[in-house]
Amino acid sequence: MREVSVAGVGMTPFGKQQKNLKQLAVQAAREAIVDAGIPAAEIDALYIGNFLGGSLCNQQILGSILAGELGLRGVPSMTMEGACASGGIAFRQAYLMVATGVYDTVLVVGVEKMTDSPTVKTTEAINAAMEQGSSERLSGLTFPGFFGLVANRYFHTYGATQEHLAKVVLKNRNFAGNNPLAQFQKPTTLEEILASRPISSPLGLYDCSPISDGACAVLITAEKGEVNVIASAQASGPSQLQDIEDLLTLSAVQQAARQAYQQAGLTPDNIDVAEIHDCFSITEILTIEALGFFEKGEGAEAVKRGMTAQDGRIPVNTSGGLLSKGHPIGATGLAQIYQIVMQLRGTAPNQIPGAKIGLAENLGGTGAYATVHLFEGGRHS
Amino acid sequence: MREVSVAGVGMTPFGKQQKNLKQLAVQAAREAIVDAGIPAAEIDALYIGNFLGGSLCNQQILGSILAGELGLRGVPSMTMEGACASGGIAFRQAYLMVATGVYDTVLVVGVEKMTDSPTVKTTEAINAAMEQGSSERLSGLTFPGFFGLVANRYFHTYGATQEHLAKVVLKNRNFAGNNPLAQFQKPTTLEEILASRPISSPLGLYDCSPISDGACAVLITAEKGEVNVIASAQASGPSQLQDIEDLLTLSAVQQAARQAYQQAGLTPDNIDVAEIHDCFSITEILTIEALGFFEKGEGAEAVKRGMTAQDGRIPVNTSGGLLSKGHPIGATGLAQIYQIVMQLRGTAPNQIPGAKIGLAENLGGTGAYATVHLFEGGRHS
Repeated sequence: MREVSVAGVGMTPFGKQQKNLKQLAVQAAREAIVDAGIPAAEIDALYIGNFLGGSLCNQQILGSILAGELGLRGVPSMTMEGACASGGIAFRQAYLMVATGVYDTVLVVGVEKMTDSPTVKTTEAINAAMEQGSSERLSGLTFPGFFGLVANRYFHTYGATQEHLAKVVLKNRNFAGNNPLAQFQKPTTLEEILASRPISSPLGLYDCSPISDGACAVLITAEKGEVNVIASAQASGPSQLQDIEDLLTLSAVQQAARQAYQQAGLTPDNIDVAEIHDCFSITEILTIEALGFFEKGEGAEAVKRGMTAQDGRIPVNTSGGLLSKGHPIGATGLAQIYQIVMQLRGTAPNQIPGAKIGLAENLGGTGAYATVHLFEGGRHS
Repeated sequence: MREVSVAGVGMTPFGKQQKNLKQLAVQAAREAIVDAGIPAAEIDALYIGNFLGGSLCNQQILGSILAGELGLRGVPSMTMEGACASGGIAFRQAYLMVATGVYDTVLVVGVEKMTDSPTVKTTEAINAAMEQGSSERLSGLTFPGFFGLVANRYFHTYGATQEHLAKVVLKNRNFAGNNPLAQFQKPTTLEEILASRPISSPLGLYDCSPISDGACAVLITAEKGEVNVIASAQASGPSQLQDIEDLLTLSAVQQAARQAYQQAGLTPDNIDVAEIHDCFSITEILTIEALGFFEKGEGAEAVKRGMTAQDGRIPVNTSGGLLSKGHPIGATGLAQIYQIVMQLRGTAPNQIPGAKIGLAENLGGTGAYATVHLFEGGRHS
């Protein structure tokens, strides 16, 4: 496998945006190309992460559209879908193409346009990430319903409370306050979070990631650079509740993480900063356990004690996370990488001094997919 | 690049099917695994080609669902989208993974479930393969409208007639009569084709590929086998009419074909049998020209003279093609490969005696994507 580095990144603001699906993607892509400082003509292929283009925007063929708009006509292009992990999956495919020598330079763009549709339509479209005929779909669960159920189980098993969840939310909101691209930059308080209207008990409004528009692009090349990809792993997990052996274990995340650490010859202790998939506050807690940052059942307490804060043992979601940065689904996996790249360049909002090794974890469905990528940089320190 | 061969194939009947999206995919996948005669546990990854799962079936995450159902839990899986070229694109990504040594064995499954939706909804969903804001979409064109326009231009430029188109239809229907998996196996006549109700002048009902359900699976491995992949190419083309330089040139097909011939060190004259993307009768004519089988403007006459028939210079669409075998979009690119594999094994409907080199060409949108794959086999002769 060849060395692969991130040559450039670009990202639109997340939240309700005026631009349409194509315009968002083009903005992020152009920014990444400019950031890389290489001619667009050197791009060999274009990989898109997108989930809802067909169901919400009646617009697919995004690869071809973007190739044309960027003047890349002719290069192979396509869209990859793995629900909320679409961005991470697209990045991994692109990485493998460069690492194995098929292409030298690949542009990966994740994009989603969600705020133009009525909430009911959006909710139904997102449910395509659950399996039809599964007990959860038959009983009318949506994603907040599913993760509310998981949170209850966590409370029951480990004695955690809503205040533990609120600590995740507060941390990520505080981080987002310093991120000019985040959807929710307004400060909040623990009291406000705990008083927010219930969505799916015990999850309140602030425990749920929002509906967002946005795009993010990452340009990778086959040479050692300022920020290098040192591991890429992907796993599939159960696509329905009845197949999940333990509701409190994200098995796909665990499996992908294990592979990634092994590829890089690292352990969870070596990670300086992480962006993970906090689609709900409870999911961040389960994920920091699945990634091996904390023992099973100890994640909630670790967050409460500030161990994932900026000055904690392992700072998590310094971008604001999905909860406060926003969650334009196809863009999310790439936006995580964007923040890790900024951290390793030394130019991130909520910069972690001396950060050298970063981790990005992207989850799809209720645990159906996970990708884990590790990056090395840190020449700034 | 390592040798890659097709170890197994499986395909459901095409047409209106009782099974749902998942069941169709599972049927084709299981058949391919049995055909390969290798344990499912040897499969390293699962690539899905699908276009309308989100917009018509409210079901995405097909990779994870299928991995679970086939007992492959854990393997990386995802869906690839490139409109009607989704199957060819998924196959190419899988091929590259095996050829470069990332994986040893990959299962590729293409699937679509289209007949459960009202025609208006299906037509709108398919239009996601055209660019929003393009003149063709703004003026209300659907795919038959677009290709009707192309046919008129061909008639005007080269003096062809509806009878030329009807000859394509008749040839493919005759082929489908011998294919037990084809949607339309009933014989027809030139008169019946010419008298069919107009859809988008000059295209009549028989000039248009149907709405279909179906799935097809191909299992590839990293060793020389009975049928080997000897070239894999992909190109993006214009995603809207205003960007097409010449309405009668499928530039993405031309470009992908050129690359494929170069990879294999072959010319169009070396191809013994071809499966190509006849979404409309006119498209088959443009495609046999773009692939270099015939000079530009001579495709229609070549078909009329029987040069693409079973005993012709280059037999085209011996499966019945999209026009008569059916066109379950995500499955189409893999069903083309299925037929080529059967031809090179010597067990195809409408077998071409001594066929050694086969070509499969898959088109997306109005020319937005194309893949071309070449296969070598022929030990049967």
